[in-house]
Amino acid sequence: MPVPAPVLHPPFNIVRLSHVDLHVTDLAWSRAYYVDMLGLQVTHEGNGSLYLRAMEERGHHSVVLRQADVPSVGVLGFKLFEEEDLDRAAHWFAAKGLPIAWTERPFTGRVLSTRDPWGVPLEFYARMDRLPPIHQKYALYKGVKPLRIDHFNLFSSNVDAAVAFYGEMGFRVTEYTEDAETGRLWAAWTHRKGGVHDIAFTNGTGPRLHHLAFWVPTPLNIIDLLDLMSTTGYLANIERGPGRHGISNAFFLYIRDQDGHRTEIYCSDYQTVDPDLEPIRWDLKDPQRQTLWGAPAPRSWFELGSVFQGAALQDSDLKATPIIAP
Amino acid sequence: MPVPAPVLHPPFNIVRLSHVDLHVTDLAWSRAYYVDMLGLQVTHEGNGSLYLRAMEERGHHSVVLRQADVPSVGVLGFKLFEEEDLDRAAHWFAAKGLPIAWTERPFTGRVLSTRDPWGVPLEFYARMDRLPPIHQKYALYKGVKPLRIDHFNLFSSNVDAAVAFYGEMGFRVTEYTEDAETGRLWAAWTHRKGGVHDIAFTNGTGPRLHHLAFWVPTPLNIIDLLDLMSTTGYLANIERGPGRHGISNAFFLYIRDQDGHRTEIYCSDYQTVDPDLEPIRWDLKDPQRQTLWGAPAPRSWFELGSVFQGAALQDSDLKATPIIAP
Amino acid sequence: MPVPAPVLHPPFNIVRLSHVDLHVTDLAWSRAYYVDMLGLQVTHEGNGSLYLRAMEERGHHSVVLRQADVPSVGVLGFKLFEEEDLDRAAHWFAAKGLPIAWTERPFTGRVLSTRDPWGVPLEFYARMDRLPPIHQKYALYKGVKPLRIDHFNLFSSNVDAAVAFYGEMGFRVTEYTEDAETGRLWAAWTHRKGGVHDIAFTNGTGPRLHHLAFWVPTPLNIIDLLDLMSTTGYLANIERGPGRHGISNAFFLYIRDQDGHRTEIYCSDYQTVDPDLEPIRWDLKDPQRQTLWGAPAPRSWFELGSVFQGAALQDSDLKATPIIAP
Amino acid sequence: MPVPAPVLHPPFNIVRLSHVDLHVTDLAWSRAYYVDMLGLQVTHEGNGSLYLRAMEERGHHSVVLRQADVPSVGVLGFKLFEEEDLDRAAHWFAAKGLPIAWTERPFTGRVLSTRDPWGVPLEFYARMDRLPPIHQKYALYKGVKPLRIDHFNLFSSNVDAAVAFYGEMGFRVTEYTEDAETGRLWAAWTHRKGGVHDIAFTNGTGPRLHHLAFWVPTPLNIIDLLDLMSTTGYLANIERGPGRHGISNAFFLYIRDQDGHRTEIYCSDYQTVDPDLEPIRWDLKDPQRQTLWGAPAPRSWFELGSVFQGAALQDSDLKATPIIAP
Repeated sequence: MPVPAPVLHPPFNIVRLSHVDLHVTDLAWSRAYYVDMLGLQVTHEGNGSLYLRAMEERGHHSVVLRQADVPSVGVLGFKLFEEEDLDRAAHWFAAKGLPIAWTERPFTGRVLSTRDPWGVPLEFYARMDRLPPIHQKYALYKGVKPLRIDHFNLFSSNVDAAVAFYGEMGFRVTEYTEDAETGRLWAAWTHRKGGVHDIAFTNGTGPRLHHLAFWVPTPLNIIDLLDLMSTTGYLANIERGPGRHGISNAFFLYIRDQDGHRTEIYCSDYQTVDPDLEPIRWDLKDPQRQTLWGAPAPRSWFELGSVFQGAALQDSDLKATPIIAP
Repeated sequence: MPVPAPVLHPPFNIVRLSHVDLHVTDLAWSRAYYVDMLGLQVTHEGNGSLYLRAMEERGHHSVVLRQADVPSVGVLGFKLFEEEDLDRAAHWFAAKGLPIAWTERPFTGRVLSTRDPWGVPLEFYARMDRLPPIHQKYALYKGVKPLRIDHFNLFSSNVDAAVAFYGEMGFRVTEYTEDAETGRLWAAWTHRKGGVHDIAFTNGTGPRLHHLAFWVPTPLNIIDLLDLMSTTGYLANIERGPGRHGISNAFFLYIRDQDGHRTEIYCSDYQTVDPDLEPIRWDLKDPQRQTLWGAPAPRSWFELGSVFQGAALQDSDLKATPIIAP
Repeated sequence: MPVPAPVLHPPFNIVRLSHVDLHVTDLAWSRAYYVDMLGLQVTHEGNGSLYLRAMEERGHHSVVLRQADVPSVGVLGFKLFEEEDLDRAAHWFAAKGLPIAWTERPFTGRVLSTRDPWGVPLEFYARMDRLPPIHQKYALYKGVKPLRIDHFNLFSSNVDAAVAFYGEMGFRVTEYTEDAETGRLWAAWTHRKGGVHDIAFTNGTGPRLHHLAFWVPTPLNIIDLLDLMSTTGYLANIERGPGRHGISNAFFLYIRDQDGHRTEIYCSDYQTVDPDLEPIRWDLKDPQRQTLWGAPAPRSWFELGSVFQGAALQDSDLKATPIIAP
Repeated sequence: MPVPAPVLHPPFNIVRLSHVDLHVTDLAWSRAYYVDMLGLQVTHEGNGSLYLRAMEERGHHSVVLRQADVPSVGVLGFKLFEEEDLDRAAHWFAAKGLPIAWTERPFTGRVLSTRDPWGVPLEFYARMDRLPPIHQKYALYKGVKPLRIDHFNLFSSNVDAAVAFYGEMGFRVTEYTEDAETGRLWAAWTHRKGGVHDIAFTNGTGPRLHHLAFWVPTPLNIIDLLDLMSTTGYLANIERGPGRHGISNAFFLYIRDQDGHRTEIYCSDYQTVDPDLEPIRWDLKDPQRQTLWGAPAPRSWFELGSVFQGAALQDSDLKATPIIAP
């Protein structure tokens, strides 16, 4: 099995993925898309940025949209268990020879900024401003009724190495795709918070963000969103779905904003808190791993992603993504 | 508008579509497919045939499966309002020069057998054996939990003529696709029972049965069926969907049995009982008419259908089906 | 069986129930309730009235709210098949010695105004102004996402007589409750348009409108409405449900506006177009007829209703409503 | 706030609730109820016991049914993070003067048996036999399609003390009901695994098990179960619901087996992994805490529970449970 054993006592305690900074080229357009259409709630705006949260989140934000000249991903954020974990994390990244900086960020206490070995900008914090619950303010629900940020998915030029690196941080593999010919990992899903993933890696030119995902309660939320998008001018932003993934068992939809940032709407995965949870292996040749029901993904889904600010792209040394022709 | 005015006082009163005879090459396989997997209820079996009904039907059957050497469709059945309508129908078909015969059919009273001008075998009856309600016997529900037969869809070599002919019988057009270049009908949906259609016609080599459809209550029934089919050996029988049609607004799934008989699982269309209901026009060039959400249908869906016993095939004089490449 | 045989060739052809006039004491409050909260669409307003339609309706309105000093029901409206049916209806009511008048009504052609023998104000028309379809304008959907008016339910002081009278007009019984001790009808559900009912009658001081109903696609619409009402100041307007009726098999919710007008939100009944459909009998002693799952209805549901303008109340000669104590 | 601060570094690491032993008086009846009707999967049977798991569980069992002369609850089981936690737990319980024993249990490694201060029998383990995944074997799903055990709910004669005791073990409070008059806790929901609760306590004669709960994906699972139970002889086993709790926001149904063991079917709560999650306070006088939509719970729900083997009952020193009359 190409998956390393889980690290049960990682050097610092990551609670969950937390937030993402998306650089967008037309903030008004993005506001219409993420707020009016998708249903995220504005928690702050000003200085060319918009802070958003989903309906059951009490942290101040899970998405920050920033007006920029070119689209990119500014940073991926993670929440640590307590303040001491911040120092432990700084020590760990520094020992790896990775850059660390203590950053000021609005609505957040101490923030550790760093990068993974491939240049993905990461930040960690322990305490973010907390907001009152709105999950029972049903008059606010709209669009797809997003409940919470669920995961990040990254193109990686070396999934084996990425899984090893993030595994050291305590991310535990729940499912993975193996290229049986080479014994190499093609893709892997790793978690901290007890679902199928907080962060996943898939083979391809990287690092790039393949998508971020929001969790919704039922497939009908996704059907409602499709009806809405297809009749309000967002038809071209629908990329793939609805369908059920073999991997994760989740019911999904993929949509892309006009800057190419992809969002997955996601429901129905399973609980993974057991430390002895056995990862589920999928063969690269099994098309049901992608879509349990058999429908192929479009080429764009295999090829397109969002670049990270300041991260150089590198091709994978594995063969090209096997696109299954429709 | 290429759609003829509705005939409000047709020569005889068709209540609804009623049943279909499917000739299948392996009755045991078909029983597993339609009964164990899809969830239709067996109401009679013997002599190489299997009679089935859906959960809210009280007529004896809506599908008859018959063991045969080659797959085909034996007949499309329709229920008339009362016995006198049978005689009126016989008179009307005879006056058109179409063949009529009074047939003995099990579980049914007098049956009028005839064909439409393109050779589609039709039969009409007024009273079929009635069975006790089972719609509240929830222990019997399984598979997709089919509630009732909803419609037939036919490939027709001349949709204008088919709509005119069936229109004389009282089928009223609810939606249609027009080829704006020629002013010809590309497809039309016509009803008797108050939904979007009892029978629809679409341009192509005909006559062939494109599909029969069963009505289910919610999209989740369809998602359940997809999960079941894709994990019990029926993955290859999933053809198209899930999705929402622009035309009819229905949420759909298309599946095909091993003999090529296609079934649509269908929900969410609308009520059409108003005699002054205006047909909705769609342009042949509008891909949302087929899938509101934009995903294209596979080539097989445009090309394959079931032949009718004893009906010669004829090509359409319109251009070939415009397949929208995925 | 206390249910009369269906009249298959009634003296005039009623297509379906059409609309109701509700007199309300605070039009602004009612607008917030029916439009902003429940999700009906405004099609006209002015002169102290508000015209509303549901999402798949193309007739101009199905509810008219009128500012008034006291709450009441102004009229129940029905759509006839064609203009000639109006004259046939006028003749039939006149022959019964019931009052007839030709009324001017906005947005509608000729309107026949009359009353049933118990004084219920009725009106009939054949053609109402038609509006463009909005069922695929998904941005307009809100609240419970009501699709169409489904039925009226009336308290009647003599259900046997009411069913006989409306039966002569062609309303066919689908289900009924019989008091086994007396052989009398306790309640009956009768239809024209192919569902379980267009109009139902239940024993009690009458005539009063027990409720009008709107059809929604799935139980989740009802759950969404409950969440919305209970967190936006409408908690006290929730009266009964959610639940499933034994009779009709429908999933239901009952809500009452501040004037006491009750609305049922309703889904999941079945198709009844067969003229030989056998009515389903329920025993008055069977509590599952009301709620399949056993939960009792509150006392208010058995006792309260809306009076009709100009109709005198009369007690039933049957024993009092059997309230099943929770 | 009467809720103690969360213990972020508890003396041993409890991953989640794990399983319950139910003593039942007719194992065949209970098998029909929990397996055939509810949909749990049998993983072992023999010697008068039946081991069950839900559809996404990979541990060997989450419910054990044992034939017994009188109904009771044998033990509540919890999974620890690693073997060392077992020794830490033993030390901690021993230091509290509570009984500890190392028990042999089938399908499980080392098991620590103990009791809480009120006599509730508890057991802890780190590794249980693992079974292959079945969550994508859709042909096995039936009944309510239970996905996983979600929580225990206990009557406690002193909720303040129970929350303090379990809080020391690391259970963090997510929501609670306070008696504003006395400042005492009336009820509290506490978690380990990142949902609203693994174990909850409510004021009453205790210790007794109020219910165990299974998680299902959507409210429609619960509606399907209600339809099934009410038409297959289990009508009297439906106790309360469906509804939405104010507390936890979950959509719920309560059912009771013939021995009085209560099961909640539960969906739609929220993620609680943040260590700084602020507990939500509810006032004892707010009826929406119990049912957001306002419908009252029946008296049985407030009064009845399952006794624990070997635990003496003690009345609460708080006033009697405030039953809100329907």
